[in-house]
Amino acid sequence: MPALRPALDFYFDFISPFGYFASLRVDDLARRYQHQVRWHGMLVGVSVLKVMGLPPIPSIPLKGAYTLHDARRYARRHGILLGRDLAAPPGNPLAPGRLFAWAQTIHADQAKTLAHLLFDRYWRCNEDLDNEALQATLTAEAGLDWQRYQAAVQTSDPNTPSPAALLHANVQAATQRGVFGSPFFIVNNEPFFGVEKMETLEDWLNAGGW
Amino acid sequence: MPALRPALDFYFDFISPFGYFASLRVDDLARRYQHQVRWHGMLVGVSVLKVMGLPPIPSIPLKGAYTLHDARRYARRHGILLGRDLAAPPGNPLAPGRLFAWAQTIHADQAKTLAHLLFDRYWRCNEDLDNEALQATLTAEAGLDWQRYQAAVQTSDPNTPSPAALLHANVQAATQRGVFGSPFFIVNNEPFFGVEKMETLEDWLNAGGW
Repeated sequence: MPALRPALDFYFDFISPFGYFASLRVDDLARRYQHQVRWHGMLVGVSVLKVMGLPPIPSIPLKGAYTLHDARRYARRHGILLGRDLAAPPGNPLAPGRLFAWAQTIHADQAKTLAHLLFDRYWRCNEDLDNEALQATLTAEAGLDWQRYQAAVQTSDPNTPSPAALLHANVQAATQRGVFGSPFFIVNNEPFFGVEKMETLEDWLNAGGW
Repeated sequence: MPALRPALDFYFDFISPFGYFASLRVDDLARRYQHQVRWHGMLVGVSVLKVMGLPPIPSIPLKGAYTLHDARRYARRHGILLGRDLAAPPGNPLAPGRLFAWAQTIHADQAKTLAHLLFDRYWRCNEDLDNEALQATLTAEAGLDWQRYQAAVQTSDPNTPSPAALLHANVQAATQRGVFGSPFFIVNNEPFFGVEKMETLEDWLNAGGW
């Protein structure tokens, strides 16, 4: 039996278009080299604004416009239809982030399915993820129990972390590992930032590093 | 006779390691698709600090350390030997920038040869480019006339722009085209930022865009 390869850690924020683009490819990419992928939520609002102390990318002169252009070019190339205007103000990342953080504590694969559904509704369908009816639908679609999530949100049991506390802990853990943007990948402690780094990541997995 | 393809504009700063890495590949890459390359000096100190209003990358928490790691990983992969410590404070970019800006007004190919020599001495040999004896040697090695450069530096003719004025104008022109980092590439008004974008740039040249 071959030795199990180390998992690839994939960090993303639902409101990051490049995180969405990466979510569509990362499992296929890793599977080709017998790596599993662990998905982790993070918040670019925390990493960019608070940890790095930078302004939001869209507001940066020249770089903001370039990044928008680059995202549209990537989407065209990969046949990704974006219902959402990339230049529109971002939605609230906390609602999907908390739901996903909770889902992970229940079942990693169902959480991944839920993340795909959330990404899809936000970027392809341009729906508002801060909508409980939609969250309930997608949670059920992923095979998870919405009532159980509601109970977790409302719990007053001090030994059960709330979804908000789970997301907060995940964001802190990501920062401690050096994650500063979305998407971000770590395998064997080797960090790769950005969707454009996925070819380099693939070469790294293929070669076993260099 | 086939129609001439548009030139690929390549922007770089001598003190940018990723600019150096790109300088080693850009002409070969473009030649495969029958594009000529026009080299342009720029200053990351102007684009990053003044135009974008950002701190120097090495000083940004998490991203600074990642960028250093990424540059070393790139150099290892491409067999590039760096005599210069990537974590060391950068040298003065004005000295090589002005010399190159002047050289371009004399002869584009000789200026490119001079740029290669300057990059090589700075990054591979860890020499100080703010050294007139070295500048004189490399200028002569590139087939250019050091005395003529000295005269250009000292000119009081108001109709002859000084090398400093030439560099200043180049930096302004780069900013006006949206260039905000090193390396940066523009072909047919299509912008590509970063050495990691060279594969995408190559695909773009090969496909004629998408």
